[in-house]
Amino acid sequence: MRRPRTLAELGERGILRSISRYLDAPSAGLLVAAPGDDAAVWRGDSIVVATTDTMVEEIDFRLEWPGFDFRKLGRRLMAINLSDLAAMGAEPRHALVSLSLRGTLPVADVGRLYRGIAEQAHRYRCTVAGGDLSGTLGPLTLTATLVGRLGSARAMLRRAGARPGWVIAVTGRLGAAAAGLRLLESGARPASRDEQAWVAAQLDPTPRIAAGRALVESGIRVGGDISDGLSREVERLVEGTRLGAIIDVERLPLARGLHSKQWLLAVTDSEDFELICAAPRARMRIAQRALERIKVPLTVVGTIDERSGIRFRNGPRMERLNKAGYEHFR
Amino acid sequence: MRRPRTLAELGERGILRSISRYLDAPSAGLLVAAPGDDAAVWRGDSIVVATTDTMVEEIDFRLEWPGFDFRKLGRRLMAINLSDLAAMGAEPRHALVSLSLRGTLPVADVGRLYRGIAEQAHRYRCTVAGGDLSGTLGPLTLTATLVGRLGSARAMLRRAGARPGWVIAVTGRLGAAAAGLRLLESGARPASRDEQAWVAAQLDPTPRIAAGRALVESGIRVGGDISDGLSREVERLVEGTRLGAIIDVERLPLARGLHSKQWLLAVTDSEDFELICAAPRARMRIAQRALERIKVPLTVVGTIDERSGIRFRNGPRMERLNKAGYEHFR
Repeated sequence: MRRPRTLAELGERGILRSISRYLDAPSAGLLVAAPGDDAAVWRGDSIVVATTDTMVEEIDFRLEWPGFDFRKLGRRLMAINLSDLAAMGAEPRHALVSLSLRGTLPVADVGRLYRGIAEQAHRYRCTVAGGDLSGTLGPLTLTATLVGRLGSARAMLRRAGARPGWVIAVTGRLGAAAAGLRLLESGARPASRDEQAWVAAQLDPTPRIAAGRALVESGIRVGGDISDGLSREVERLVEGTRLGAIIDVERLPLARGLHSKQWLLAVTDSEDFELICAAPRARMRIAQRALERIKVPLTVVGTIDERSGIRFRNGPRMERLNKAGYEHFR
Repeated sequence: MRRPRTLAELGERGILRSISRYLDAPSAGLLVAAPGDDAAVWRGDSIVVATTDTMVEEIDFRLEWPGFDFRKLGRRLMAINLSDLAAMGAEPRHALVSLSLRGTLPVADVGRLYRGIAEQAHRYRCTVAGGDLSGTLGPLTLTATLVGRLGSARAMLRRAGARPGWVIAVTGRLGAAAAGLRLLESGARPASRDEQAWVAAQLDPTPRIAAGRALVESGIRVGGDISDGLSREVERLVEGTRLGAIIDVERLPLARGLHSKQWLLAVTDSEDFELICAAPRARMRIAQRALERIKVPLTVVGTIDERSGIRFRNGPRMERLNKAGYEHFR
């Protein structure tokens, strides 16, 4: 008898058996792991942070991309959700994963997907507590829900609260994920080291969990992640106020190999899973020293001011963008 | 200017504005509501129960069904997840909702979907704490994650732990959801009152939250929901043991209007969001009295025994099923 090859051949119970090694067993922190029961049960924390995010085939990824790999896809599913916890300064605790998969999908690919999910979760001390598997006739649709904790209801990053005169800073380097996406969509295999790093930033991003916690511990209270593009995220910092911001294009920490003319890659549709924050200049210096200790650059790129709108200072020119950030329903 | 009609016309920010009235605002129990920030934040409970479940268009529902309605679809999305909390005896607290929608979908339908989600959540004192909206080129794919609480880590319903001689009981009446699905798939509009009730059981099921809690409070510790079919759920109660069970077909509490010959509707692929439990007979009587008080019937339908396999006693005949429960990847 040949081994089953696709989900439809293996059947639901067979699939559950084959993926069960990637799901966490009950432990001190996880009282009931969901595969055996209807839900997962764990000992809770006093302040809980929770987020959910979905990736859809043909919108967020394509199996045809050169070098596409299901294990990296699983890691990315966790990374985009972990980034939302990082954006609040929270520590990950438990994940629930709901996958809608075609019956024609090879079982080995599903195994690699779960392996990536589990390894990314465990890297950030997060359990894979439970989940759901559904059949679909359409694109693969992958949802994760992450539950984390905060030490206090006062010590977290929020979008609101920035004041005029505060400086705006971003972690890491920008533009790599957008450059990687262009390369993937062109169908070209990455040639140089820089190109490989761009593609890796798109396919296998690193959530800034430690940096988020270090920002909160440094007393930063205004921030978020910039997965929808730096420009859109700066907008959110001043939304509902009369404030605006100036971003210094020349200060943007572009990824290695990007030319300064390519700064728009760092500003719109960027999908860099970096953090943004705003604080008085002296407070930001404290945060910069804290992030130096964990080897994450924190670069001041602009200032909150009392003129509405987001303006980009590019040498002598002031520019405004027409459109900022990714639009899901174009 | 005419009003925008589809998601693509309205754009993501417009959609968020139009659905924001259905998302909960920060309150004593919900410190941060996600739409404005990267994640939701709430004051946690000491024992947490969490589950996630997805509905996929063309697999779990069809827009072409007679009487299909997006508000009921939203209610159903919450009901199937609430049922998993009921199955553990837990109390709902917070929901996160991740929807993958086509850009061609009318905005009014998305509004009705969210309205259904919110009204079902609020009916069970659950907040809609946050979520995610994605575009898709394929079937609508709707995921909810429910987080609830238990009073104690010892007082919950689990699949494991049934003993020989214990009786098996189910809440409510069975078979209506499967009968309703057949009617919907035939394209016929329900004619009689019974047929209307069957269709309602499929499109707009009621999760057994109060019954789940009453079972736990009565000292019942083994149980779950039967959304994958009674037969499959009885199997789960004895999985990994040498035990089996006899189900008395004549005792199955069939939904009104179903003929006793149609008992298979109550046993396979049933999708009745009722609860099953097992306990010593005296304990079950205590639970029956507790459920009487909330007007939910709890009917003994079989017995756990030491012979392996699930057997159905139908008058003088003993029958076994070849296949039990819904298979997602056929």
